[in-house]
Amino acid sequence: MSMQKLFKPPLLAVLALVGVLWWVDAPAWAQDAAEVQTSANIVWTMASAALVFFMQAGFAMVETGFTRSKNAANIMMKNLMDFCIGLCAYWFIGFGLMFGTFNGLFGGSWFAFSFTTAYEADAWPFTFFVFQSVFAATAATIVSGAMAERTKFVSYLIYSLVISGLIYPISGGWAWNYLFGGYNGNTSGWLGDMGFIDYAGSGVVHLVGGASALAGALVLGPRIGKYSSTGEPRAIPGHNLPMGMLGVFILGVGWIGFNAGSTTAAIADIGWLAMNTLMAASAGALGAMFTSWSIFKKPDMTFVGNGFLAGLVSITAACWSVGPVGALIIGSIGGILVVISVLFIETVLKIDDPVGASSVHGTCGIWGVLSSGIPWFANSNQEFGWEQMVPQLIGAAVYFVWPFVTCLILFFILKATIGLRVTADEEIAGLDMGEHGNVAYPDFVGIPSAQESEA
Amino acid sequence: MSMQKLFKPPLLAVLALVGVLWWVDAPAWAQDAAEVQTSANIVWTMASAALVFFMQAGFAMVETGFTRSKNAANIMMKNLMDFCIGLCAYWFIGFGLMFGTFNGLFGGSWFAFSFTTAYEADAWPFTFFVFQSVFAATAATIVSGAMAERTKFVSYLIYSLVISGLIYPISGGWAWNYLFGGYNGNTSGWLGDMGFIDYAGSGVVHLVGGASALAGALVLGPRIGKYSSTGEPRAIPGHNLPMGMLGVFILGVGWIGFNAGSTTAAIADIGWLAMNTLMAASAGALGAMFTSWSIFKKPDMTFVGNGFLAGLVSITAACWSVGPVGALIIGSIGGILVVISVLFIETVLKIDDPVGASSVHGTCGIWGVLSSGIPWFANSNQEFGWEQMVPQLIGAAVYFVWPFVTCLILFFILKATIGLRVTADEEIAGLDMGEHGNVAYPDFVGIPSAQESEA
Amino acid sequence: MSMQKLFKPPLLAVLALVGVLWWVDAPAWAQDAAEVQTSANIVWTMASAALVFFMQAGFAMVETGFTRSKNAANIMMKNLMDFCIGLCAYWFIGFGLMFGTFNGLFGGSWFAFSFTTAYEADAWPFTFFVFQSVFAATAATIVSGAMAERTKFVSYLIYSLVISGLIYPISGGWAWNYLFGGYNGNTSGWLGDMGFIDYAGSGVVHLVGGASALAGALVLGPRIGKYSSTGEPRAIPGHNLPMGMLGVFILGVGWIGFNAGSTTAAIADIGWLAMNTLMAASAGALGAMFTSWSIFKKPDMTFVGNGFLAGLVSITAACWSVGPVGALIIGSIGGILVVISVLFIETVLKIDDPVGASSVHGTCGIWGVLSSGIPWFANSNQEFGWEQMVPQLIGAAVYFVWPFVTCLILFFILKATIGLRVTADEEIAGLDMGEHGNVAYPDFVGIPSAQESEA
Repeated sequence: MSMQKLFKPPLLAVLALVGVLWWVDAPAWAQDAAEVQTSANIVWTMASAALVFFMQAGFAMVETGFTRSKNAANIMMKNLMDFCIGLCAYWFIGFGLMFGTFNGLFGGSWFAFSFTTAYEADAWPFTFFVFQSVFAATAATIVSGAMAERTKFVSYLIYSLVISGLIYPISGGWAWNYLFGGYNGNTSGWLGDMGFIDYAGSGVVHLVGGASALAGALVLGPRIGKYSSTGEPRAIPGHNLPMGMLGVFILGVGWIGFNAGSTTAAIADIGWLAMNTLMAASAGALGAMFTSWSIFKKPDMTFVGNGFLAGLVSITAACWSVGPVGALIIGSIGGILVVISVLFIETVLKIDDPVGASSVHGTCGIWGVLSSGIPWFANSNQEFGWEQMVPQLIGAAVYFVWPFVTCLILFFILKATIGLRVTADEEIAGLDMGEHGNVAYPDFVGIPSAQESEA
Repeated sequence: MSMQKLFKPPLLAVLALVGVLWWVDAPAWAQDAAEVQTSANIVWTMASAALVFFMQAGFAMVETGFTRSKNAANIMMKNLMDFCIGLCAYWFIGFGLMFGTFNGLFGGSWFAFSFTTAYEADAWPFTFFVFQSVFAATAATIVSGAMAERTKFVSYLIYSLVISGLIYPISGGWAWNYLFGGYNGNTSGWLGDMGFIDYAGSGVVHLVGGASALAGALVLGPRIGKYSSTGEPRAIPGHNLPMGMLGVFILGVGWIGFNAGSTTAAIADIGWLAMNTLMAASAGALGAMFTSWSIFKKPDMTFVGNGFLAGLVSITAACWSVGPVGALIIGSIGGILVVISVLFIETVLKIDDPVGASSVHGTCGIWGVLSSGIPWFANSNQEFGWEQMVPQLIGAAVYFVWPFVTCLILFFILKATIGLRVTADEEIAGLDMGEHGNVAYPDFVGIPSAQESEA
Repeated sequence: MSMQKLFKPPLLAVLALVGVLWWVDAPAWAQDAAEVQTSANIVWTMASAALVFFMQAGFAMVETGFTRSKNAANIMMKNLMDFCIGLCAYWFIGFGLMFGTFNGLFGGSWFAFSFTTAYEADAWPFTFFVFQSVFAATAATIVSGAMAERTKFVSYLIYSLVISGLIYPISGGWAWNYLFGGYNGNTSGWLGDMGFIDYAGSGVVHLVGGASALAGALVLGPRIGKYSSTGEPRAIPGHNLPMGMLGVFILGVGWIGFNAGSTTAAIADIGWLAMNTLMAASAGALGAMFTSWSIFKKPDMTFVGNGFLAGLVSITAACWSVGPVGALIIGSIGGILVVISVLFIETVLKIDDPVGASSVHGTCGIWGVLSSGIPWFANSNQEFGWEQMVPQLIGAAVYFVWPFVTCLILFFILKATIGLRVTADEEIAGLDMGEHGNVAYPDFVGIPSAQESEA
């Protein structure tokens, strides 16, 4: 490939040929590379979507394993159905509200889209839709854990529909509407316009889920036997801790898709995002382990599992804008916070959240949004100062207040109409039998729970 | 990079240099983009193959969770071994029968292929083989569920070998032989030549598995205690419903690879395929939920789980040629059908299929093949009319009759020689102990099943 | 696009334009294809990293399922924490020791790296780090199984830190330092320089884990009740065999990332690697099945599960350099070896390794390293002869002796200081309660194990 080759053929002929080849073919080649990049983007986004869909199984395992055996089939079924209903609602209306052409408050196009709308021109919207729909399902399924072991199944179906179809997408568009780029005419939501940082959704997804969860647990009231007559909380242990911990591992796998997949593109940032994500998760587990160790004198498995998730939730907003040291700090504080928050909500607020969903996703969601604005944690490529805390504080407030208030209204309406909670008899006997006619473990001899006999 | 740069260097020298660079390097670049596309194809196909392999775990969880604890180790082991034996058989003979140069009835090359055959020229066949081999394993493992809790382990190994090595690949080639393109000299099977639509295998894979499952359950006869002396079916509940439901989630994750991976290429269709797949699965779960709710007055978890799978099986043939509305309709009908089919096979045909495999994969497999030919459901890019029903009807018949008849013969031969079923004593005590000397849950106190004491 | 286009515009203007376009844009295009290949490399490496991270869940399921219910929470927690601690240690020091600029014994750069070090120039190191860190976690977690049911939790945390941060990375660099290429100035470890073949780590990862496991089980001594007063081993059955088998499936899925992901590039070899990997795993399960069948007269599920893993460990070194026939032979010998090794270690050496980790990863790790040097098994593209056995024998010795000796020292120091083993009372009551205050399955009636009452 030396310079000498230049003079081998007659120069002019070469130049002429070059001119032709160039003009005719080169643009096609140039397009090729861009097209292949698009292919790679689709591959990465869909592989990530598969991982995020797998998080549904993770949430199901965590919630089922950390609650009682008499409600196991009910919780598994709720976790499947919130996805099924949520996907249909998100396709029919939610995606359009979130990513359609923004009208100041929400999007107004791309409802119930189908082949004719877009396929011929460009298939990217479908990949993007699948990725976004599994995010919507995540927000909805978080609520399930806080309302476990006492919620009517039919009411669960209805509020899953409303959260996936309306509450999550409307506020989601405020920050993320711009992500759909030219497909909605390059509109953008008002929070996104403010420079709000929430890379993969500490606020947009997790805080929305956590605040909704808190509203649900508040309206429902505690499970029978959770508090003594003097108001002391009693432990209601989960029936299958290894199952719950399997869920934690699955969520860790899925979160690689959640955070590193939020590039929705095959780009170099993927490694950076995954590194920060796993560092923060590890720090969260360590933070929760040492915190629970010092409080209870022993490192409790369920707190450590929740600490791992707390680290993940905490880093989700800042996973791009921090570096590994920042990720370690943010994650470990998240792990400490989750233990304190669980105890605070249980003993001070006296709200019964069986799996700590409002702490893991709510408290750590707020921390994730706020910590993204602290310049100390940011990597050297970021140029923001403390003024970044303004959009972060607004965002934290918005993603707490909007779902909390709308869900309070929603749950009160459900309570006043078809009812939100099963009867006391059904709750004591278990929702598996009462709601579904199922027995989760018919081959094993069970132990009647102490809470039930006292109740 | 402005136009002014043009005049900075002496023009002629530039042109000369361009000529050289072009001539020397440009063709290499052109090839680059195509090569990178091939890289992306391999990445997507292998990531999908990993997801489809994961379906083996999903099937194992569904089958084990929805049957009794005394057979749990046996079922897990069967699900592992059918993959292990199936892969060897598929490599040795099956792949060649399915994708080798077609001779009118089956393929006749690419048996037991290895490095020397193809690697030097092109490595694509190996990626393609891995993807196809996990499909073959899927077909074989479906049968396991219908024949659960009473089949001799050694007979199971033998029929897995025959299904993966002969029955599945021969009929598979009729529709899919052409997918191997130039590697078999661009031959094609007779069903493929007819324009038969079965994008990812409602017929080729699932109906073949479901029809084989029906034949197996028929030849074996019902489990002891399944039918009363007057012929009334009795419920034999699964021992671990959350485990079964985890299997349903895992199958959902894997099916993204099954359907969207069937592009075997990193192309825009991936998003479209995944969207339709998840929409149909969700509709299937909803369809089964409302159907079981209206029949039993409560939404049964096992039916809903099977409904999700029914939606997946139903859309597998049409996942490319429909749009989301079509997917919702096809999936919801699949979910309704699976409940009716389970009840029909159990109460009318009096065939004991413990996990409903013949309904999920057989009945919905037929529905998937037929619904692909209904023009109403097709997306706007399709141009077929009702005449498409001809190849679809032929395909549905072929993929029911071929495996059903060959498996009947196979199972009768096994029954007449080494025996297909364990002894009544072993069946009552459980296959874990009888076949393997294992106890699945030695640390827990079990409940002897009512069926056994009555038997 | 015909030649005639050449003459449509004035030739000279074309040539001039070509010159400009070329000079300005063409290098950018040329870079495009290479950049897209880099994107695809990142996608594949990160997808593989997610699969390998998922192996943590697989190991957790195998170890927990194949041990007793009273230690289930402890084992799940250990498997999570060794990743969390290991990742931090590997980021802080381990990665630099393994992949930093090699100084004759270990690497000496890239410690605690962050954004400023590399991101601006090139983000590949972060993807590579994530992939390598999940490998480090694999090595550490293997040890957990052999030391299950009696190790102090705090000692476990400390030795996980040392293995992930020092022992594994130092010896790992000897073979794999060169994989980091230009990022460490193209240095290389001494074993790598000898032409040692260990594609994905039969020796570097699995033998290191297996030898450490053996050292740990040796120093700890057997569980109470494992050996009778006359020294006869007694079976201590695992409490949840389906859970253990789910772990085997998950490890199979993850191993596609482990072996085929070790390309750390989107290249054609991926299919080849995955094919060999799955063939060897299948052969391993078959080998162990027939071996256990002939010894115990029944095919034991736990041996078959371990046989599948044995096949995977055995092929990990040679997965690139063999062909499918070689993979079948290597895997099936691995499956036979694992049964013999488990019995030998248990009955002859009288070392109590509850899940057979030292056999699966140690014995088969040695076999994997040695079999890679046997020319008979190599594919037709390899050109080595029996002289290849020299580096393979050295490698097998090194990757056994280094971790075994360093871990012996480590475990003796721990034993002499904070203690390595829990009290006999705690061991009998279970580590869940003693170490963590958790009950893994509080809703089910348990069976006190025979071993405990005899002890």
